Amino acid sequence: MSYDRASVRQVLDRVKADKRAALTPAESKVLCDAYGIPLPREALAASAQDAARMAAEIGFPVVMKIVSPDILHKTDAGGVIVGVKTAAEAEQAYQTVVRSAAAYKPGAKIAGVQIQQMLTGGQEVIVGALTDPSFGKVVAFGLGGVLVEVLKDVTFRLAPATEADALSMIDGIAAAEILRGVRGAPPADRNAIARIIVAVSNLAADFPEITELDLNPVFARPDGAIAADVRILIDFAPPKERYRPSQEEILRAMNRIMQPDAVAVIGASPEDGKIGNSVMKNLINGGYQGAIYPIHPKVAEVLGQRAYKSVKDIPGPVDVAVFAIPAPLVAGALKECGEKQIPGAVLIPSGFAETGNVELQDQIVAVAREYNVRLMGPNIYGFYYTPKNLCATFCTPYDVKGKAALSSQSGGVGMAIIGFSRSAKMGVSAIVGLGNKSDIDEDDLLTFFEQDPNTQVVAMHVEDLKDGRSFAEVARRVSKKKPVIVLKAGRTAMGARAAQSHTAALAGNDRIYDDVLRQSGVVRAMSLNDMLEFARCLPILPTPKGENVLIITGAGGSGVLLSDACVDNGLKLMAMPPDLDAAFRKFIPPFGAAGNPVDITGGEPPTTYQNTIKLGLEDPRIHALILGYWHTIITPPMVFARLASEAIEEARARGIDKPVVASLVGDVEVEQACAYLFDHGIPAYAYTTEKPVAVLGAKYRWARSATLI
Amino acid sequence: MSYDRASVRQVLDRVKADKRAALTPAESKVLCDAYGIPLPREALAASAQDAARMAAEIGFPVVMKIVSPDILHKTDAGGVIVGVKTAAEAEQAYQTVVRSAAAYKPGAKIAGVQIQQMLTGGQEVIVGALTDPSFGKVVAFGLGGVLVEVLKDVTFRLAPATEADALSMIDGIAAAEILRGVRGAPPADRNAIARIIVAVSNLAADFPEITELDLNPVFARPDGAIAADVRILIDFAPPKERYRPSQEEILRAMNRIMQPDAVAVIGASPEDGKIGNSVMKNLINGGYQGAIYPIHPKVAEVLGQRAYKSVKDIPGPVDVAVFAIPAPLVAGALKECGEKQIPGAVLIPSGFAETGNVELQDQIVAVAREYNVRLMGPNIYGFYYTPKNLCATFCTPYDVKGKAALSSQSGGVGMAIIGFSRSAKMGVSAIVGLGNKSDIDEDDLLTFFEQDPNTQVVAMHVEDLKDGRSFAEVARRVSKKKPVIVLKAGRTAMGARAAQSHTAALAGNDRIYDDVLRQSGVVRAMSLNDMLEFARCLPILPTPKGENVLIITGAGGSGVLLSDACVDNGLKLMAMPPDLDAAFRKFIPPFGAAGNPVDITGGEPPTTYQNTIKLGLEDPRIHALILGYWHTIITPPMVFARLASEAIEEARARGIDKPVVASLVGDVEVEQACAYLFDHGIPAYAYTTEKPVAVLGAKYRWARSATLI
Repeated sequence: MSYDRASVRQVLDRVKADKRAALTPAESKVLCDAYGIPLPREALAASAQDAARMAAEIGFPVVMKIVSPDILHKTDAGGVIVGVKTAAEAEQAYQTVVRSAAAYKPGAKIAGVQIQQMLTGGQEVIVGALTDPSFGKVVAFGLGGVLVEVLKDVTFRLAPATEADALSMIDGIAAAEILRGVRGAPPADRNAIARIIVAVSNLAADFPEITELDLNPVFARPDGAIAADVRILIDFAPPKERYRPSQEEILRAMNRIMQPDAVAVIGASPEDGKIGNSVMKNLINGGYQGAIYPIHPKVAEVLGQRAYKSVKDIPGPVDVAVFAIPAPLVAGALKECGEKQIPGAVLIPSGFAETGNVELQDQIVAVAREYNVRLMGPNIYGFYYTPKNLCATFCTPYDVKGKAALSSQSGGVGMAIIGFSRSAKMGVSAIVGLGNKSDIDEDDLLTFFEQDPNTQVVAMHVEDLKDGRSFAEVARRVSKKKPVIVLKAGRTAMGARAAQSHTAALAGNDRIYDDVLRQSGVVRAMSLNDMLEFARCLPILPTPKGENVLIITGAGGSGVLLSDACVDNGLKLMAMPPDLDAAFRKFIPPFGAAGNPVDITGGEPPTTYQNTIKLGLEDPRIHALILGYWHTIITPPMVFARLASEAIEEARARGIDKPVVASLVGDVEVEQACAYLFDHGIPAYAYTTEKPVAVLGAKYRWARSATLI
Repeated sequence: MSYDRASVRQVLDRVKADKRAALTPAESKVLCDAYGIPLPREALAASAQDAARMAAEIGFPVVMKIVSPDILHKTDAGGVIVGVKTAAEAEQAYQTVVRSAAAYKPGAKIAGVQIQQMLTGGQEVIVGALTDPSFGKVVAFGLGGVLVEVLKDVTFRLAPATEADALSMIDGIAAAEILRGVRGAPPADRNAIARIIVAVSNLAADFPEITELDLNPVFARPDGAIAADVRILIDFAPPKERYRPSQEEILRAMNRIMQPDAVAVIGASPEDGKIGNSVMKNLINGGYQGAIYPIHPKVAEVLGQRAYKSVKDIPGPVDVAVFAIPAPLVAGALKECGEKQIPGAVLIPSGFAETGNVELQDQIVAVAREYNVRLMGPNIYGFYYTPKNLCATFCTPYDVKGKAALSSQSGGVGMAIIGFSRSAKMGVSAIVGLGNKSDIDEDDLLTFFEQDPNTQVVAMHVEDLKDGRSFAEVARRVSKKKPVIVLKAGRTAMGARAAQSHTAALAGNDRIYDDVLRQSGVVRAMSLNDMLEFARCLPILPTPKGENVLIITGAGGSGVLLSDACVDNGLKLMAMPPDLDAAFRKFIPPFGAAGNPVDITGGEPPTTYQNTIKLGLEDPRIHALILGYWHTIITPPMVFARLASEAIEEARARGIDKPVVASLVGDVEVEQACAYLFDHGIPAYAYTTEKPVAVLGAKYRWARSATLI
């Protein structure tokens, strides 16, 4: 589809010259025509004969409306007739309308009578575009009518949207079935709706000044879709652009910041209890092997490292400077970092925007821009990068190496990450505090982690995305390679913005986050614990090769709860082929149940678990296993843990690598068995059927978004 | 409202005599009239003059339809005219209809022309009744139209429903706002809709043979509500009644079963590894102080207790017999229990209905009925009652005494309860396996726990309610006194029943469970872990005296997540009065945030936590506290745990007892702090913001349903 941008530009220039904030219907029509958005056919009749001919051309029924600059309320003036069905009726209607108008306002200037195609039938839908403070232009789709407005059944995508995006929107609303045709109604023309969604999204994306666009309603019929009403709002004030270097520049800086060969500590202190002392200790005790340069105005050394008065006195290059000085001193020291050409500053101090001191933050950002220094923070705990044994933080050191990189906007959540990681023995590659995000934000981190061989999954606690659009772009690319998990906090603080149009009124901020994150391939965690468990398990679990999930359980009761959890997490319980059913039945007691779940029953010896797990691993039609273990004396917890681990390792040795998760119910010994299973690559949980399935579900969500299955 | 039951009886008798399964429209009208359900006004005209007069009486517009036993498809015959607006039109329509009918089918017998009030405007809703396999008669309410059918926005209550029930249904659908009037539309007449719901529920409840009833649509208008179409289905086959003794009888038996003075073990064995040996060991080692009578065909004693060949040989009375013999031997031994007048049998053996052997189960139930023995099981692990140190089970003994009683239908879930309880140091009063529920089920247990002074909360894992109606009745009563928590497994196995009407088609089984459980005051847990945590925390938490919840947090990030969790759990964040805001501000740094959450910021000393917590406890406008702790060196985890506990205990000593929960983020030391807080009556969780709030939310749900707030 080629769009006529020139015509739109012309209209908008005129609106700008007029200093207007909304388009007239005629102007809106020009824009719709330019982007191929179908509106009702219409014509302006100057005589009764005209009216009859034009109405016939447009196709009956038609609506006829008086056009007069002197008459604002057409209906009050008797100037509107709907449902005109024949040429004769059109002639008569022309005369009636003109006569009524003249009677209503004698001497009114009559420009003619508008003949408009009358839209009937079909399903009313809404297509719109709006400007989100974080994501910029987004396109919206929902069913029309008061009911859906109440139920807020609407979905969003970044603009411009592709045709695939548009079709996914049509399928993505709760009431999608309506458009497929229910109770014998014919299905609506999906492609016609999708074309309108794509056109609206392009129109909004092509012209930044179009802040809101409403097609409401659009009549979606079996043979096309037509917008009955258009409303377009304009704002020529340019939005503030966030600083965004190229991906290459980001990577160059981030690689030096995250894996530095030399670290300066500004405000390093020999005094116990000081933040600058804790940072020094963590660097040294954490086992960092690069150069450590304490910066201190007076002392000659800190904790055995030679100290300097300024970073400018350091003989060699420095990759990152960690700041542990009061907020008012930051700008000065940062300038020196710039002069020393240090690419990154980690700003632990608080006392900036988070306390209301926006100016001080703007000031340091200006310095950073001037000298091209990237800023992490301010108001953060610092960061960890375990492959370099780097603990650039005043918190406790952390050293369990692994494949998960985590970030948090809040220090508290950062501490939860550290505590959970240590407690759950979750290996991490990095933990990063982002705090006020004056500069470095999630998409900078993603750009680094994308190519970091030590990171297999990225999990991020996010309160707000300063530049949601950049994040979405980078996440869409990165999530094809590595899972990106996001915990979005503040999701229930909805509807803060004043609503100026229907589309905007429909926009709960969180629904936009939800849709755009999904569109970007992000796996969204709905709770802190889920984020942590997903980060822990996704690197462990191999990627499933298909949708067939099988439950093997010793406890029938667990089987039911695990099935519930599968439905909750969008997992597909494999329909059991008869031959496979028969194969499982060979191993289980006659009163056990094959099918799915395979219920091996509770009193079975280890061999029954062994045989069924092995079969589950070996049959190529099964893509993932959920194990339900029931503690019995006949097969104690550790016996189960060992046999399951052995079966899986044996299969792996032969190239069979399926995701397996386990739920263990029983006395406290099952906790030890869970730890053993985790150590052997099997996410296993005690006293819960929902957590292992949620974790597998997260892996599936990622695999689907990365189109690996 | 008095209902004319005699007229309904008359109609149903005729339908029964005719062996029909559905009512004719005329019969349906009799039923509706008898129960005051408004239908469109109508009359039968025998002449054109009649038609004109009757139409005027009914009120225009009207619909006119030919009435002829020989014409089935009225519309095809040209026998229907809608929108008749005047007396003249009615006269003409009469003649048109009669003429068309005669032309369509010459010689057709014409009974006249029906004149019917034409319903326009208002909101279409559905009111219906159906027979649920578990709950019996339930009444349904939803919005009408294809959209709601797709969105399944419908709600249920047990029939008969009260007016309060009916109003809660109108408010309980997702689209409730529609009926309150949106976009300037007038609100629908709630009372008129409620009257119809109540009438339908009474009609269905009064006549067991009415299996389904559909009013679809009902036009709900500002000035009343009228059912446009009625459909009533009938089944005269009486449903199978489940055995249900009186509450007094239940209590008499359950009191002896649950707190016996003498226990017989049928199949007691001296041999290690046998179930009958484990039961004996658990009874003895668990510390049970009553008489223990092993029953064994040969040996003289088992584990030092004198053995008997039959229960009939035991000299004194026996309260409960625990069965540890193979299924085929159960009936015989049960007969002896009956002859010995033992009121209860705990049937551990499997091999009954759960393996398909329904007959064997029916057989033992028949024996039990004959001798008035109540059966627990079969196919269970047994039960624990800690106040008596009673472990009547083959599982491990459990001895942490407390106020939570738990039951499970599945043995696996029972083991999860035991493991979790031990691990979390959750005190329990009882753990009961219900298995096949051949007789004793959840409502028997509830009846016992209701008056058991050792039990403060009841948590139940339920796969199906054999008699949902009895359960609902008992739960409604008990939940006013003690929280009843239910984990309903198998909730996603929906829509199994064939749908014969719209109402039935709308009925997903789980939605009925959900609504009826709520109607009964039950706190529903959506996951195994939630059920366990609710059981653990509800007895600890005092009942809040009002809806005002306040968050006090050291971590701003936790505050945001805790606020999200409050919304998720239906908790109301108190709007902060200015004087209270000022009072909090005195204690926190100037850049901290008062309001709600009160963000005391991360670097604060213990006194700041102390002062704000104390203020939160003391101000009577605050009804519950959520604490967010952030691990720092300045206020380490155990310091926080101690100061919070002390503040709360001090307040309690002065009669201030508010529910307080805590979320702790930090390094692993926070786990010890959580354990300490739990020991001091404060549910506290590490690395999760959602769990403590979910627990508080459960307490609130209960307090509201018990109308304590």
